[in-house]
Amino acid sequence: MRIAVDAMGGDYAPDVVVEGAVLATQEYDINVLLVGQKEVIEEKLSKYSPNRDKIEIISASQVIAMAESPTEAIRKKKDSSLAVAARLLKNNEADAMVSAGNTAAALAISRSILGKLKGLARPAIATIVPNAVDVTILLDVGANAGNCGPEHLLEFAVMGEVYARNVLGKSAPRVGLLSVGEEQSKGSAITLEAFPLLKNAPINFVGNVEGRDIVNGTTDVVVCDGFVGNVIIKVIEGVADTIFQLMRFEVNKSRLAQFGFLLAMPAIRKFKKRVDYSEYGGAPLLGLNGACIIGHGKSNAKAIKNAIRVASEFFSHNVNAHIEQNLENIKLKQETLNNDIV
Amino acid sequence: MRIAVDAMGGDYAPDVVVEGAVLATQEYDINVLLVGQKEVIEEKLSKYSPNRDKIEIISASQVIAMAESPTEAIRKKKDSSLAVAARLLKNNEADAMVSAGNTAAALAISRSILGKLKGLARPAIATIVPNAVDVTILLDVGANAGNCGPEHLLEFAVMGEVYARNVLGKSAPRVGLLSVGEEQSKGSAITLEAFPLLKNAPINFVGNVEGRDIVNGTTDVVVCDGFVGNVIIKVIEGVADTIFQLMRFEVNKSRLAQFGFLLAMPAIRKFKKRVDYSEYGGAPLLGLNGACIIGHGKSNAKAIKNAIRVASEFFSHNVNAHIEQNLENIKLKQETLNNDIV
Repeated sequence: MRIAVDAMGGDYAPDVVVEGAVLATQEYDINVLLVGQKEVIEEKLSKYSPNRDKIEIISASQVIAMAESPTEAIRKKKDSSLAVAARLLKNNEADAMVSAGNTAAALAISRSILGKLKGLARPAIATIVPNAVDVTILLDVGANAGNCGPEHLLEFAVMGEVYARNVLGKSAPRVGLLSVGEEQSKGSAITLEAFPLLKNAPINFVGNVEGRDIVNGTTDVVVCDGFVGNVIIKVIEGVADTIFQLMRFEVNKSRLAQFGFLLAMPAIRKFKKRVDYSEYGGAPLLGLNGACIIGHGKSNAKAIKNAIRVASEFFSHNVNAHIEQNLENIKLKQETLNNDIV
Repeated sequence: MRIAVDAMGGDYAPDVVVEGAVLATQEYDINVLLVGQKEVIEEKLSKYSPNRDKIEIISASQVIAMAESPTEAIRKKKDSSLAVAARLLKNNEADAMVSAGNTAAALAISRSILGKLKGLARPAIATIVPNAVDVTILLDVGANAGNCGPEHLLEFAVMGEVYARNVLGKSAPRVGLLSVGEEQSKGSAITLEAFPLLKNAPINFVGNVEGRDIVNGTTDVVVCDGFVGNVIIKVIEGVADTIFQLMRFEVNKSRLAQFGFLLAMPAIRKFKKRVDYSEYGGAPLLGLNGACIIGHGKSNAKAIKNAIRVASEFFSHNVNAHIEQNLENIKLKQETLNNDIV
């Protein structure tokens, strides 16, 4: 298994990326291709005692900044670490890729180099949200900004279901359509049209779900338009941050409360580990002709290591082949229905 | 000041509604018209020592259930407590109204009885979200499910700004347009079109904001489509519930952590009060020809009392007259611009 890793992507790159790559080669049966500025990477690598049989450096002269426009990045930076990593995947020199860099640029570049899966209209960015029981996969969270039709929501449902089953190990993932009420009659014009499409798809569709179902453990896959999904992941981050900030503020006003919190700290640390994104290894880009995982911009070495592991699972479980097969089945079923009507 | 209160609306009605009404008449210079089934209300009232000079019972024979369809409720229940309360408002027998009942029915009924403000296309439901500093008003959270155009987002901005200034006491409320990035170029087709409209409006427009800005205290008014807003308020509730549930789970595994939490409890209680919806008195329905406040379905007596206070402020600060004036100003400015172009 060979994973191409964008060594230059992420707020703390290349340091934490190199460290995470070394950790991954130590823990898993994985070879890493570190893509980026060779001398910088060599220097960072020298700080660890890497097994050089499992780590190779692939040269890429350019770096895409976190806030850089994707269209500019595609046009002007043909030799960026992201583009070189995507080409390794395209040419079968790598089996999967990982970047903790600019998500929009990663999507645009890998989409232009790798292309889309057969029969698919819209790739999506999925994210793994910790819930009260384990995790929920939410998609799309930003590949498409508010212009998704019902047929695209169906594609997201199919992709999310395959990923939840094959990579997250859920046996019959419950797929919900995000709406403003549980009844089939509740929703926007687009979700109302999407409902019967999802109901007829070969998935365990549980109907409309609401915002709270993303985090309460009742649903494994939640499907929504990319504008809504993107807003939601930032609401979730914001609410969690605000709760801890306000709680810390009140606790710090009293010595007794501070002492109490100190006693509870091991429990709170376990809770924080439970909701720590770095445990979950990043967001899959679904619908591309290749296995791509995008890490959080603030990824630390552990997050990078986990993203590399998840990328290898994305590849080894044939996620993309399963998605293409399911899309094909839906198309065939539709054609049969149409023929029956004629 | 006379406030019509739907005594039959809410999960714990009429008990908590009657109690909340008594509390309001004791604490504020407010008269309450309790609307609903006379004998039931009389019996509940007898449990307190109400000042009957300030509480009147207005008879309404029908009750609308929490999950009842609004169209059914309008058609079949002309004598519901909600409809009777709205007619009191319409006939100037009450100055404002409060219901903790079925939100969709309350909106539909008060809209059909009171009508919309002059020059306004779309009423909205606003909600008050506690943030890291004080509160943010988010609208629309469900009056319109996903079919809002740019001109409706402008109306929401104007209404939210007037409410934040006059009722929440913010001097130059910062109004943000909810989107997927801060840059003007980021957003859906509709938010991209709404941006210049909000920029030219007589409000303190701070540009695009993201999901986290609803809770981190950087924005006073956040404007979005009703589908998005409705999903968000349920995400916020769900995330807060899940965090406390997971934290309690970890803490309960250790005696020491339980003891620590006990010591920190007064601080945690202060924090909980800070984020308790019952302190904020419910959601204003904006854009109707009358001052209507909808309480949370799970309102307790304190929440009802606060909703009655907020309804009186909604009326006494002339929110609706200010909204009509601002809409008129925008229209005049637009006409001047058009004439200049011609």
